[in-house]
Amino acid sequence: MEKQGLLYEGKAKRIYATDEAEVVWVEYKDSATAYNGEKKATISGKGRLNNEITSLLFDYLKSAGVESHFIEKLSSTEQLVKRVTIIPLEVVVRNIAAGSFSKRTGVDEGELLKQPIVEFYYKNDDLGDPLLTLDHVLELELATEETVNDLKERALYINTLLREYFLEREVKLVDFKLEFGMTAEGTIMLADEISPDTCRLWDSNTNEKLDKDVFRRDIGNLTEAYEQILARLGGSESCIK
Amino acid sequence: MEKQGLLYEGKAKRIYATDEAEVVWVEYKDSATAYNGEKKATISGKGRLNNEITSLLFDYLKSAGVESHFIEKLSSTEQLVKRVTIIPLEVVVRNIAAGSFSKRTGVDEGELLKQPIVEFYYKNDDLGDPLLTLDHVLELELATEETVNDLKERALYINTLLREYFLEREVKLVDFKLEFGMTAEGTIMLADEISPDTCRLWDSNTNEKLDKDVFRRDIGNLTEAYEQILARLGGSESCIK
Repeated sequence: MEKQGLLYEGKAKRIYATDEAEVVWVEYKDSATAYNGEKKATISGKGRLNNEITSLLFDYLKSAGVESHFIEKLSSTEQLVKRVTIIPLEVVVRNIAAGSFSKRTGVDEGELLKQPIVEFYYKNDDLGDPLLTLDHVLELELATEETVNDLKERALYINTLLREYFLEREVKLVDFKLEFGMTAEGTIMLADEISPDTCRLWDSNTNEKLDKDVFRRDIGNLTEAYEQILARLGGSESCIK
Repeated sequence: MEKQGLLYEGKAKRIYATDEAEVVWVEYKDSATAYNGEKKATISGKGRLNNEITSLLFDYLKSAGVESHFIEKLSSTEQLVKRVTIIPLEVVVRNIAAGSFSKRTGVDEGELLKQPIVEFYYKNDDLGDPLLTLDHVLELELATEETVNDLKERALYINTLLREYFLEREVKLVDFKLEFGMTAEGTIMLADEISPDTCRLWDSNTNEKLDKDVFRRDIGNLTEAYEQILARLGGSESCIK
């Protein structure tokens, strides 16, 4: 597989074309951003950690029957994935109140929700990624009602799988964000990444935060937290300095 | 009917007990507030206008089969209504993009929506009346799923009635907010008010704003705009100075 021209550069990843039309080459960057890009930093090792963790989680989900765009890890910061067009919805699943959910509803951070909640946010930096209802999604023609229901069902199933998987490793899956994409043939599949950048992960005994909130709220060392997660997932110790 | 002690004072109205347990006395105030109370003013005549307009609209809705808490107008600023417990949801119906909908979705103000959209906001000043999804409403136990669906259906029916009623009077019903209440016997009915404080109303020929946006955005004389609405609804000309 040959790496070709840059197709897209996002806040956390660069996407390159390859010599295969339906495959792209992803490079995870060391940049950390929060609050819609208002807070920024370069954190050495972050690209490697998110690539390793995402690769492990996509492999695990595949073994449990959840198809994603992930093909294989190429190096500590690179992976090959299927080329998809991202559906411009951030699909958020919440098990425990935290972050914007607590701010919106007044439910204290840390409170277990009666049942997992799926929310859809408009993936649109100019608008600040606002919460959308189904009617908003339909008005904006971002997805059909059938697709929204399908995404919700998939997100809840992935939650069931990941929640248990993390808990076995003494990590609470508080909430997480998924993105889905569509292949040229019209197949919808899980895409983007699943990492401490896109999940809230708390130590199940101490509630210590092991995710991007460490960076958002300046409450510790991000790399140490992400290394913790990688180690608990059984990631290569040789990578851990 | 005898007016008794003050039960509640809100931003726009005072509610008094009466000698009948199931009836309360509403007094419309001359105060105008916007942006969750951040902008305030006293506007002489506003209480009278909203009382007159609300009374006319509730009478019209009643004639079309929509039950509300409204019993009768007592004076230019007062009315009798059934005592209800307000469901803490602001039910917003939108026909044309404007205000927070345009800000949220990026749809230009004035654009006709593909179909009317119903939104639910949490009636909670401390939280800034946030938008809620059905899952949020259920998590917060603000209403059951059955009630939410019922409120949505009623709101859409009221929209059909009011939209036509206003259009016959050369006014576009852009969007509006409803509140519903529950009687001691558990009957849900339309409550609160329907006025230029709670609706966006544009002249159907010129798109001139005839509602609270005149105050919110400092673009004209609020009383003149509200008088326009009252006059078009056939309200007492003798009240108009």
